[in-house]
Amino acid sequence: MILSRQKGRIVPVTERAAVRGLAADKDNLIWVDLNRPTQDDLQWLSDTFGFHDLALEDANKQKQRSKVETFDDHFFVVAHGVRPHQKSALDLIELHFFVGANYLVDIRHDQFEPLEHLLENAAQSRYLQQGPDFLLYALMDMAIDTYFPAMDRIDDAIDQMDRKLLETPAKDDIERISGLRKQLVFMRKHVSPQRDVVNALISRDFPAITSETVFYFRDIYDHLMRIYDDIDFSRDQLASQLDIYLSRVSNNLNQVMKRLTVFASIFMPITFITGFFGMNFGYIQDRSPGWWVIITVFIVAVAWANYWWFKRRQWL
Amino acid sequence: MILSRQKGRIVPVTERAAVRGLAADKDNLIWVDLNRPTQDDLQWLSDTFGFHDLALEDANKQKQRSKVETFDDHFFVVAHGVRPHQKSALDLIELHFFVGANYLVDIRHDQFEPLEHLLENAAQSRYLQQGPDFLLYALMDMAIDTYFPAMDRIDDAIDQMDRKLLETPAKDDIERISGLRKQLVFMRKHVSPQRDVVNALISRDFPAITSETVFYFRDIYDHLMRIYDDIDFSRDQLASQLDIYLSRVSNNLNQVMKRLTVFASIFMPITFITGFFGMNFGYIQDRSPGWWVIITVFIVAVAWANYWWFKRRQWL
Amino acid sequence: MILSRQKGRIVPVTERAAVRGLAADKDNLIWVDLNRPTQDDLQWLSDTFGFHDLALEDANKQKQRSKVETFDDHFFVVAHGVRPHQKSALDLIELHFFVGANYLVDIRHDQFEPLEHLLENAAQSRYLQQGPDFLLYALMDMAIDTYFPAMDRIDDAIDQMDRKLLETPAKDDIERISGLRKQLVFMRKHVSPQRDVVNALISRDFPAITSETVFYFRDIYDHLMRIYDDIDFSRDQLASQLDIYLSRVSNNLNQVMKRLTVFASIFMPITFITGFFGMNFGYIQDRSPGWWVIITVFIVAVAWANYWWFKRRQWL
Amino acid sequence: MILSRQKGRIVPVTERAAVRGLAADKDNLIWVDLNRPTQDDLQWLSDTFGFHDLALEDANKQKQRSKVETFDDHFFVVAHGVRPHQKSALDLIELHFFVGANYLVDIRHDQFEPLEHLLENAAQSRYLQQGPDFLLYALMDMAIDTYFPAMDRIDDAIDQMDRKLLETPAKDDIERISGLRKQLVFMRKHVSPQRDVVNALISRDFPAITSETVFYFRDIYDHLMRIYDDIDFSRDQLASQLDIYLSRVSNNLNQVMKRLTVFASIFMPITFITGFFGMNFGYIQDRSPGWWVIITVFIVAVAWANYWWFKRRQWL
Amino acid sequence: MILSRQKGRIVPVTERAAVRGLAADKDNLIWVDLNRPTQDDLQWLSDTFGFHDLALEDANKQKQRSKVETFDDHFFVVAHGVRPHQKSALDLIELHFFVGANYLVDIRHDQFEPLEHLLENAAQSRYLQQGPDFLLYALMDMAIDTYFPAMDRIDDAIDQMDRKLLETPAKDDIERISGLRKQLVFMRKHVSPQRDVVNALISRDFPAITSETVFYFRDIYDHLMRIYDDIDFSRDQLASQLDIYLSRVSNNLNQVMKRLTVFASIFMPITFITGFFGMNFGYIQDRSPGWWVIITVFIVAVAWANYWWFKRRQWL
Repeated sequence: MILSRQKGRIVPVTERAAVRGLAADKDNLIWVDLNRPTQDDLQWLSDTFGFHDLALEDANKQKQRSKVETFDDHFFVVAHGVRPHQKSALDLIELHFFVGANYLVDIRHDQFEPLEHLLENAAQSRYLQQGPDFLLYALMDMAIDTYFPAMDRIDDAIDQMDRKLLETPAKDDIERISGLRKQLVFMRKHVSPQRDVVNALISRDFPAITSETVFYFRDIYDHLMRIYDDIDFSRDQLASQLDIYLSRVSNNLNQVMKRLTVFASIFMPITFITGFFGMNFGYIQDRSPGWWVIITVFIVAVAWANYWWFKRRQWL
Repeated sequence: MILSRQKGRIVPVTERAAVRGLAADKDNLIWVDLNRPTQDDLQWLSDTFGFHDLALEDANKQKQRSKVETFDDHFFVVAHGVRPHQKSALDLIELHFFVGANYLVDIRHDQFEPLEHLLENAAQSRYLQQGPDFLLYALMDMAIDTYFPAMDRIDDAIDQMDRKLLETPAKDDIERISGLRKQLVFMRKHVSPQRDVVNALISRDFPAITSETVFYFRDIYDHLMRIYDDIDFSRDQLASQLDIYLSRVSNNLNQVMKRLTVFASIFMPITFITGFFGMNFGYIQDRSPGWWVIITVFIVAVAWANYWWFKRRQWL
Repeated sequence: MILSRQKGRIVPVTERAAVRGLAADKDNLIWVDLNRPTQDDLQWLSDTFGFHDLALEDANKQKQRSKVETFDDHFFVVAHGVRPHQKSALDLIELHFFVGANYLVDIRHDQFEPLEHLLENAAQSRYLQQGPDFLLYALMDMAIDTYFPAMDRIDDAIDQMDRKLLETPAKDDIERISGLRKQLVFMRKHVSPQRDVVNALISRDFPAITSETVFYFRDIYDHLMRIYDDIDFSRDQLASQLDIYLSRVSNNLNQVMKRLTVFASIFMPITFITGFFGMNFGYIQDRSPGWWVIITVFIVAVAWANYWWFKRRQWL
Repeated sequence: MILSRQKGRIVPVTERAAVRGLAADKDNLIWVDLNRPTQDDLQWLSDTFGFHDLALEDANKQKQRSKVETFDDHFFVVAHGVRPHQKSALDLIELHFFVGANYLVDIRHDQFEPLEHLLENAAQSRYLQQGPDFLLYALMDMAIDTYFPAMDRIDDAIDQMDRKLLETPAKDDIERISGLRKQLVFMRKHVSPQRDVVNALISRDFPAITSETVFYFRDIYDHLMRIYDDIDFSRDQLASQLDIYLSRVSNNLNQVMKRLTVFASIFMPITFITGFFGMNFGYIQDRSPGWWVIITVFIVAVAWANYWWFKRRQWL
Repeated sequence: MILSRQKGRIVPVTERAAVRGLAADKDNLIWVDLNRPTQDDLQWLSDTFGFHDLALEDANKQKQRSKVETFDDHFFVVAHGVRPHQKSALDLIELHFFVGANYLVDIRHDQFEPLEHLLENAAQSRYLQQGPDFLLYALMDMAIDTYFPAMDRIDDAIDQMDRKLLETPAKDDIERISGLRKQLVFMRKHVSPQRDVVNALISRDFPAITSETVFYFRDIYDHLMRIYDDIDFSRDQLASQLDIYLSRVSNNLNQVMKRLTVFASIFMPITFITGFFGMNFGYIQDRSPGWWVIITVFIVAVAWANYWWFKRRQWL
């Protein structure tokens, strides 16, 4: 879809051939949104704006690292977000932007609702009332804002795990802990280069980015730094949870072994005693009931002594 | 609350409308303190001082990272402290400052006693007798000084844990250790960017910060560095404590298993002996008491030999 | 093998003596490919192009680190790839390039199919239609592209291990995990200096590299960064798998010990009871069948109570 | 105590009032040593030399981080050493220096013998024959040289532990290992900023430090780097010792469990056999002695087979 | 020993007094090699070449960190190698070099064969035909080349350990692993500063180092980088081996405990059965042989059921 701002009015452009003419007037603003572009689309971009083949190939192949690359009269940005409404943070949205003096081309391979919402309501939006740098800010901000709910979801899961480890630890906790860790590492892998990208947009001299818009990109930068800090903090918590989990496993083993030892320590001596008086020597056999009582008392005494010893040492 | 210094005298300003006029005279100093600002308050700030929407939004939303941002004729600082009188260091105070040529606006969402104390006793204080940079120093120093008692509390808890691990280790020690670690990591997360902020205030050219006040900010910087060093040192100690705790768990298991092994090693052979002579073969049955005595002595000998063997190997 | 481009046509050079003359015309392009060079070959290179002895020695000895070194009128690059069609990523291809104003010499000690394919089809290729920098790009790109299938192989193995750990963990999993980790560390060791090399080619002033070709080297740089990120991400996953594996070993031990404890706790008391009534006291012997039933019921009750206790505590 | 060098002669100054006058002559050298200064002392320093309140407060409060701070006509240095003759490296000496054009003021809160020795023998020492920078070098060198015996003590303890772990590991080894680690981390915490301080003294332009004295500070820098390297090396050794200790605990458990398993595996089957023939069936009872011999041989054979199996698997 | 090159001829210098005169002619080259210098030797160096006392003290004391220090008309380098023919990499060679415009003085406290070989065959060597920088390169290259056989020895030991861990792991493996790790950490500690030294020689402006010799120092730098990479790679492998070793210990424990549990699970129930029928109740006694057969079959069935259960769960 193609939108243009001509003398302050947002107008959809239906004829692709008209774009080159519109772009020639520096007061116009053109926004080209391409979802799953065809080879024809890319060829048209190349013809109209003169984008470099390598950049178009990147935009088409996806799975790129976040980066910003300057070309003669435009620059190329790759940004990422997390697909909203997903359970896992491992599902990325990748946006590619070509930003020129008075146009922005975005290429994506996926539905991205906030962007589509802006496309539909472009006429009412302030984002198209300024240069393409401000539109770039708006779109990157949308992408990066998707990290916050993802981060909240992970933080909730970590808090839940915190409680769970105290109450009812289970065997698959460790898989869940490392599943969360994987999501954090994955997010970090994508947030880290975006931070560099936004930092470059702020500090390097991109003529297309006005000093007013820089304030807005600084805001994105802060968001990314906060996400980054949160990721590190959460990773540290997961490391603690792993320690707690493993120490719980060890403690459980201790408990199990203590119980076994207590049982064995109590029953082994008294079983021996019964064995002793079970030996087939005539000398022991056929005695008076008194003997029987004495032995029974002795057995109880031995068992109770063992029990008491363990009780005092707090094994029970 | 709004205070102003006019010709050296500290005067409360009751009419907000007067602020703009007071600020026009560069010899005056204006201090605006806003606790939980309303949208009207923020609008008034925007109208009076021309603060950027993004900065006001940050100040309103809270949960910001420490940062310093320059705008045309003022700069914006976010600083943190730990809420005093709390058991845990996880409870932050967040202060936002707008510092102009002759005014300081602070926005907070919380009671912060040292600041309120200064507000009430502003007339007697030397902090309002200089520029807004010196007032900024005073307020940031208050915030950062809250880290020291928090740090002391954590260090005390670590020392206590040190003794506890030697005397009576318990199952929940690991949760307490990682609870302390979480506090340290949390403090580190907030101290680290503040260090960058203060460093920027010292080294970069903020015209609003006089070379005399830089000495004071250097003092804050030292405080932050010391807190940072202490956090790292304490984290290392907690890592050691975790090692000690886990090795204690393992050693305990060894002790339990040694006891079980000793019991089994002593009673299994002698129970076998009693079983042997409990077999129903006529050959053994109905013998003389001599046999009985010999077997009894043999059993005692076997038990004692086992006992002695373990004693010598220091299992008992 | 030696190829030259003379007035746009790709011509093989059969006479080595002709190379010096061809190189003198700056419009020509000369590509010398040496597989397992002899001392004579190296001597000829030294005589013809004036390469430094140390660089030629490096090219001959192999096992070099990736690097770029400038000499008076040429520069020397060492690049690596992974031998394709190998099971393990531990088998390297090492390529050495000497790049001058209008020539590229590559030295290798191994078959490298993409390069050989280019040699054979040079006439149809666009890679020889520009300067030696573009040919260098083409060859380095070939080398670095070999990392992607290697990385895919490793990622597949990691995913397989993920499923295996959930289903049927085995004793040698840890060797396979650390085998994968070794491959990643090995790749990282070789990718890391290559990143520096390509970064140097992009940013430093190599007059032989035109501003147009820099775009292509930036593409290689992106590839290396992505490989590097993937290596780090995969290493993290292997660390998680190690944690899972070790916790599984501990959990298994717990399970084993629980079973033992359950068995011992059930059978020790009832075996004691049988021992008790197996003692040779006339008082117990020769009683009525009623006794026998009572004891049997008692034994079943004790065994069942123990069983129920373990069931409730979820040991079974 | 106050010393001055006047025309090459070292003279104690008894009247504090005279110091200002002496300092006015740039050829004189004044050394003020204050141990546990009173508020009056600090006031006098402030009046005489114009030191900044914050620096004096630091010097008075102690527990500062190593740092160097420049003021208008002097600079302020905080340095640390280890109290000699102590068992633990956790006991610090803190020295504060104010260095001006022709004076050095040191403030300490502790006895420090090498410094006091120099004070007493100042007349014979070459350290007062040059500027205050050389005296600063002498005093800092004294402080930093105290690290070497402390480091030697720790290295000895580590070597001792190495031998101990091989011979007679004990339960409290882990506390001793982490005690040593704590000392190393503590030293590192104080050596690290001192390195930065000395580096600043070498490289930044402190007019008070002559190019000749820089050679001497470079020597201190080397010492600090060596201490730092040694601390890292020792920390790594302690990490290895922890691994060895923990693996020994695990191996011990294995040994204990193997012994238990061997005992149980030998005695359980033969005890079962005796039980089998202990059953009260007339069919078995009252048989010929031949049966008895066969069963006894069978029991010995089962026990020996089990024993042999464990022997071959090297469990015994 | 002192050598000089006069008009291209290498001549030993027997009279120390002549050295100053020879050094005055800038076309001569003087090489002074001092093994275990006496105080007289050092004094003579100081008198003849004007070396700084601190540098001479370093050269005499040994145990220095690798460094390069510039003085007015010469520079001072400390380099290290590994003593060849030693089993362990913990035995260092330390070389100190003073390099002036036309002289090189090396001080060592040890035999170092390659250097002595060069001394004896100096007349035939190309290393003395250029400036002192090229001689410095030759000697440093000799020192650093000693790391390669040491590294090979360690890599061989690691490979051996790899095989050993798979076949016959033993209790002292962990000591051997951490012994190897200690050697690597020790080498790293000495290689790391040497890298900085050689980098300084390459990049900083040492007038004594010609642009031609810089190529050779770059070669040394590559060697150091490769050694450094190899050390890191080997360290990572040792970390993997530690993981494998510890998991093997845990797996062994599992195996031991499984065997114990299997034995106990099989024999406890059937021993109970024999106990049950061993009770002295007339009701069971003196029955027909049929009972005996039924019970025997029952015992075998119980034992076999347990065995089968464990077999199916792959415990056996």
